[in-house]
Amino acid sequence: MPELRKDPIIGRWVIISAERGKRPSDFIIEPEKKRGGFCPFCEGHEDKTPPEVLVYREEGTLPNKPGWRIRVVSNKYPALQIEGELNRRGDGVYDFMSGIGAHEVVIETPEHNKDLFDLDVGHIEDVWWVIRDRILDLKKDSRFHYILVFKNHGAAAGASLEHTHSQLIATPIIPKRVLEELVGFQKYYSYKERCIFCDIIRQEKETAKRIVLENDRFIAFEPFAPRFPFETWVMPKNHIMNFEDSHKEDYADLAKIYKDTIKRINRSLSDPPYNFMIHTAPLLDDTYNDFHWHMEIIPKLTKVAGFEWGSGFYINPTPPEDAAKFLREIQF
Amino acid sequence: MPELRKDPIIGRWVIISAERGKRPSDFIIEPEKKRGGFCPFCEGHEDKTPPEVLVYREEGTLPNKPGWRIRVVSNKYPALQIEGELNRRGDGVYDFMSGIGAHEVVIETPEHNKDLFDLDVGHIEDVWWVIRDRILDLKKDSRFHYILVFKNHGAAAGASLEHTHSQLIATPIIPKRVLEELVGFQKYYSYKERCIFCDIIRQEKETAKRIVLENDRFIAFEPFAPRFPFETWVMPKNHIMNFEDSHKEDYADLAKIYKDTIKRINRSLSDPPYNFMIHTAPLLDDTYNDFHWHMEIIPKLTKVAGFEWGSGFYINPTPPEDAAKFLREIQF
Repeated sequence: MPELRKDPIIGRWVIISAERGKRPSDFIIEPEKKRGGFCPFCEGHEDKTPPEVLVYREEGTLPNKPGWRIRVVSNKYPALQIEGELNRRGDGVYDFMSGIGAHEVVIETPEHNKDLFDLDVGHIEDVWWVIRDRILDLKKDSRFHYILVFKNHGAAAGASLEHTHSQLIATPIIPKRVLEELVGFQKYYSYKERCIFCDIIRQEKETAKRIVLENDRFIAFEPFAPRFPFETWVMPKNHIMNFEDSHKEDYADLAKIYKDTIKRINRSLSDPPYNFMIHTAPLLDDTYNDFHWHMEIIPKLTKVAGFEWGSGFYINPTPPEDAAKFLREIQF
Repeated sequence: MPELRKDPIIGRWVIISAERGKRPSDFIIEPEKKRGGFCPFCEGHEDKTPPEVLVYREEGTLPNKPGWRIRVVSNKYPALQIEGELNRRGDGVYDFMSGIGAHEVVIETPEHNKDLFDLDVGHIEDVWWVIRDRILDLKKDSRFHYILVFKNHGAAAGASLEHTHSQLIATPIIPKRVLEELVGFQKYYSYKERCIFCDIIRQEKETAKRIVLENDRFIAFEPFAPRFPFETWVMPKNHIMNFEDSHKEDYADLAKIYKDTIKRINRSLSDPPYNFMIHTAPLLDDTYNDFHWHMEIIPKLTKVAGFEWGSGFYINPTPPEDAAKFLREIQF
């Protein structure tokens, strides 16, 4: 079973995956995978993945057979393991926790050569519904405190398979990066009695210089202090705490703004590798029950080096105002 | 002038470098630089860098001419700028600070094809003395609160030039990542009345399973909860707060353990790209005046993906006990 270990100085948890047990020779740098070759996520290869946890498929077709549009399966090489008890133990200055969690893959389309943003808006909307349903189901398990939804697109962004997919990882603790946001959110709230994300949206709309796109329910903008060039945040304009508490109109508008934003990023930056991460409220802790969920998109354009690793400080060579202007004005 | 901007939610500062002002076309992915080509750090090319700030050179040779062994110059493309006043200002929810700081490069040898660890132990020791002297000098400037010393080795670790060098960046604030350590250090101290790093060293020596190397004054070990495979920490065994407060014997032993550790990493992992970062006590704030300085070495073997960016949680496929055993037992 994977093991969670806590850094005794800064309290950051890491997952030590002894099963993977990579030896030095496993790290010899592989050339980027070429297009083509066998893909376990393609239609017809359903038996090459763990069985479906949730699927949208044509009526009359059989489970784990062709005929699906969106398919959720457990990750074949999960970072955390679903079975077992959540134990905590110590050893001198050190702390362990059993590596309990869920790790699922959302295969967004049977078509190998399409990316999520290529799909039609209705199909993208369905992907959000699928993610919502998986969150609602995983939420029932009281061992889980958080669910992170994310996408790795391109080898440089950590994708091991090229066929478009996103992932859900349910963790037994609230991850550090999310906790920092929750704490920051709460500090601001206790001082101003307003949501900081709502205030940010208000200010961004006033100045308009970092906005990329807007529709009825969503806004996409370059954050004021982005770590990376062309880092883009997408947020509901209304104060919605959980991704999974959205309405049909929200998912529809999210699909539209997502498609358009990624199209602009791809056109401006020649299809860069990228990640997106969804930050939503934690599952159990109602101290934070007034959070404002959002999506962070980060194209992989620069390398993280010693200064960043050592300081937690980032050097960004593209002011977000410039990035927003490029993305806003790009011609299709 | 570069601008420091603070993320209003989590308080992370970023450096927005409008001078670099990278446009989308600047991010087209370049192939890795080949060996060869013009190198501004090589002997004879002294006029291609800013003038020397500090140099170890043969007697009778002229400044900014050949004849040096170690040379410190200002970074030609500094992340922060030395001239100017440290101003702070706000704009609604957002905070700015002027991008004041120092950014220097330590060219560790005139020879292009040598890495720091290739040099003889006396030469490596001299590099530590040079870094010490630069810290002592920069410390006089009361605008600076912290100095981070780091090395980027290899393009994947963020090195833009192949000729071996390390860097110093003096910042007008204590960087977030360092502050987390300082706060964690202090929490432990207020609870236990002992230094957490001293306790860690004691426990590592007892179990011995994560130790890579030891000499009189230093220990190199794999931390209990490493973010990355083969992440290695090097620390003085005695409680020394500042890198720059070490004695001759310390720098000599640090040179030995550094050389041997990097040799083992290179032999085990086929010369991987890597970073090292030195965490020392802050310059002005005596709240933390009992810190224990250390060096973190991280080989670049895995890719940081959406889960890590979104959660601040890391998945490490190599238990540190295994990594330590490999590094300890490698044959030369």
